[in-house]
Amino acid sequence: MNLTLLTDFYELTMMQGYYKEYDTKQVVVFDFFYRSNPCGGAYSIFAGLEQVIDYINDFNFTAEDIQYLREQKIFEEDFLEFLSDFKFTGDIYSVPEGTVIFPNEPVMKIIAPIMEAQIIETAILNIVNHQSLIATKASRVKWAAEDDMVLEFGLRRAQGPDAGVYGARAAVIGGCSATSNVLAGKKFDIPVKGTHAHSWVMSFNDELTAFRKYANLYPDACILLVDTYDTLKTGVPNAIKVFNELKEKGIQPKLYGIRLDSGDLAYLSKKARKMLDEVGFEDAIISASSDLDEYLIQDLKSQGAKITLWGVGTNLITSKDCPAFGGVYKLTAVSNGNEFVPKIKVSENPAKITNPGNKKIYRVYDKATGIIKADLIALEEENIKETEPLLLFDPNATWKRTILEPNTFVLKELLVPIFKNGSCVYATPNIMEIQSYCQKELKTLWPETKRTKNPQEVFIDLTMNLYNLKQSMIERYKSEV
Amino acid sequence: MNLTLLTDFYELTMMQGYYKEYDTKQVVVFDFFYRSNPCGGAYSIFAGLEQVIDYINDFNFTAEDIQYLREQKIFEEDFLEFLSDFKFTGDIYSVPEGTVIFPNEPVMKIIAPIMEAQIIETAILNIVNHQSLIATKASRVKWAAEDDMVLEFGLRRAQGPDAGVYGARAAVIGGCSATSNVLAGKKFDIPVKGTHAHSWVMSFNDELTAFRKYANLYPDACILLVDTYDTLKTGVPNAIKVFNELKEKGIQPKLYGIRLDSGDLAYLSKKARKMLDEVGFEDAIISASSDLDEYLIQDLKSQGAKITLWGVGTNLITSKDCPAFGGVYKLTAVSNGNEFVPKIKVSENPAKITNPGNKKIYRVYDKATGIIKADLIALEEENIKETEPLLLFDPNATWKRTILEPNTFVLKELLVPIFKNGSCVYATPNIMEIQSYCQKELKTLWPETKRTKNPQEVFIDLTMNLYNLKQSMIERYKSEV
Repeated sequence: MNLTLLTDFYELTMMQGYYKEYDTKQVVVFDFFYRSNPCGGAYSIFAGLEQVIDYINDFNFTAEDIQYLREQKIFEEDFLEFLSDFKFTGDIYSVPEGTVIFPNEPVMKIIAPIMEAQIIETAILNIVNHQSLIATKASRVKWAAEDDMVLEFGLRRAQGPDAGVYGARAAVIGGCSATSNVLAGKKFDIPVKGTHAHSWVMSFNDELTAFRKYANLYPDACILLVDTYDTLKTGVPNAIKVFNELKEKGIQPKLYGIRLDSGDLAYLSKKARKMLDEVGFEDAIISASSDLDEYLIQDLKSQGAKITLWGVGTNLITSKDCPAFGGVYKLTAVSNGNEFVPKIKVSENPAKITNPGNKKIYRVYDKATGIIKADLIALEEENIKETEPLLLFDPNATWKRTILEPNTFVLKELLVPIFKNGSCVYATPNIMEIQSYCQKELKTLWPETKRTKNPQEVFIDLTMNLYNLKQSMIERYKSEV
Repeated sequence: MNLTLLTDFYELTMMQGYYKEYDTKQVVVFDFFYRSNPCGGAYSIFAGLEQVIDYINDFNFTAEDIQYLREQKIFEEDFLEFLSDFKFTGDIYSVPEGTVIFPNEPVMKIIAPIMEAQIIETAILNIVNHQSLIATKASRVKWAAEDDMVLEFGLRRAQGPDAGVYGARAAVIGGCSATSNVLAGKKFDIPVKGTHAHSWVMSFNDELTAFRKYANLYPDACILLVDTYDTLKTGVPNAIKVFNELKEKGIQPKLYGIRLDSGDLAYLSKKARKMLDEVGFEDAIISASSDLDEYLIQDLKSQGAKITLWGVGTNLITSKDCPAFGGVYKLTAVSNGNEFVPKIKVSENPAKITNPGNKKIYRVYDKATGIIKADLIALEEENIKETEPLLLFDPNATWKRTILEPNTFVLKELLVPIFKNGSCVYATPNIMEIQSYCQKELKTLWPETKRTKNPQEVFIDLTMNLYNLKQSMIERYKSEV
């Protein structure tokens, strides 16, 4: 599907307006940022960049697209002509996929002629909001599962095919080991997993026959679903019979065990563990997959549930308790030919006032521990040094301030160039490299920041220069009103 | 994108199992049904059938797909060979898109050789769950908006491109008048709408200039976004200035007005209405678009807000308070060559016990009012008549029973043939026809069933034959355990 028309109609009406009113070369700066973390967390995981790159590379109004727009009877022929060989020629900066991010930071920055920067807004928001949401959720689920593997099983409840496919990709970035989604597996080279459903059991005259047939076919990965009729009375005993039969035949499966898909998972897993252990199947795996999420997994672990493999579906693939990531895309500067004139959106709600100007982000790590101390949003021309004292202060409560001594902290600039003059200059890592980068990123957070309830927030500060610029612009607008 | 691999891996492992263990012609029946309505409602809207038809028609494992499966090292060559010219050859029955549906009814029924019926499970669930969810949500939002128009504005927060595009389609089925999503507009011939964003205003030196430029470009559809700086102090006054200027030029816009996108919408809309009315712009529209949903629209209306055009985004396109539709796909019968042998899934949770057998649904309308009295699930071979007394009873509380007198009710069979022997026999109506059918469907519900809080549920009953079959099968399984 060509995604060029994957845009809000107003992007096109505005674009025609810019075409009529502006120099088509007028360069502007837009920031992508978000205002609060999903699910009450204290961080998010950035994802979706690879698909943004594909979208920008493929950006192109086809003759059919132009004809469709013509039929809307609102666009003039010169503008439609202009669209027909319209390409993205600007610069895009972004944090890499898998990066831990925080609210109000410009984690993507687009510097481009105004029409180009405007028309790509909606698709960028759509792609990055979706994948960042699911990657963040997956990192929470994985955190709850500790060292256990988490499998993504949500395709049937995902919000359409793409939500399943790109959702699986994002879930793997966030920490899932594999997916049930074969198309995602093929497309992104993600491991795919799955055994059988209730329908397999029901299609035979009895459960034991169904298990036996399955074990004969797949002796190397023999996870039997034991809850079609009665988990403890028939399911587990029949599974044990079949594991014994494999043993008698001298077959030692690489991976075998049971899957629980309903009922009280804490109780059932403990009973099943006991039944399996008593007959010598201590290495049989107990997996579970019934409306799980990070909260339930944490709860089951605290009850001593004997589950070590978690199949997570609906609640992960839709991020059920918070199904939207609130990324926004805001104009922050307009070039006057020589320099960027900062722009601001003022709101009665202080949280909705934007940070003006062409900016960058420094991540400040504690030198001794490698843990993030704060992120610092600076103007592009600023140059912060590790060898000088660094003032950090809360922009909403400026009396909260800290000075970091020189050489006690490490700085990293987070934004890297993705497109320069319309050409992609970035090589996307493969999905497992992104997953492993994300796991490293998560280690730069205190455990207190990763917990699912009442986590400790990370400080996102402005440099004094940026803070002063913002205050003076708010004052100016208020006095004009 | 070829969606043939849009499936859970276990469908393929089971399929290979069926290939090895069964006659490949073994015919089975699967039902699609769901267990509870989203968002605490008392009905749902069925949607997604057109995309299911496309999926089945295009179903085909490419050589690349087969190669990918081969690399998983779990499938044997004879099975992969078999897949390479595998097609769907069975029958599919479904309720039409836009139909009002209720829990536990088989609103789709697949009768096909077991491998074919199994492999299409995941994609059908994915497509129908998503679109039914959004169509249902949209019908709730439209219900709250009463006679006002609702526009779908959610693309930027949708869960990926498809969620935006098919979500817009479903939103229109449920009652939205238009979408902001240009690709959805082009693909499904849905009206597209939109004006300008804050960035348009911010890109000019002042708000008045931005409004003036916009009005000059689009005098016929001039809705100005008034909250970039200060809604009542600058936004509305500047809009009024521009409307006056249009008037002075003798331009009478077809559609003009303002859009509120932040702040207290009840207060601001009343104040803005007064300001517009005082200078003779009684016909200026006040639209709003700030985190709206059915509950907020109802609340704003009860406060007397002066908004008559509602742009609904995130909460509609993700169905935020309930982002998954719990449709399931269950085996209900297996052919023995002569007849269908019913199958049941027993569960400790009574709500999770399936209805066995090859079935159909009768909708029972009150003859005088045209309102639904109940739905009746029957075995395929049963023949219920309007001219005979009809016993209705609650399958969970069998003492709750009613007998309808002959000729006081009208019966309609809900399932219609979609595929016969693998060929599509159904012509999908266009989207606006589906919307209009859905509006008629909603008129067959009591208002008490449509309200968003504590709605009255509709009775979903089983015929005595089906009830007795189900009870005897449960008893048999319990005695075997």
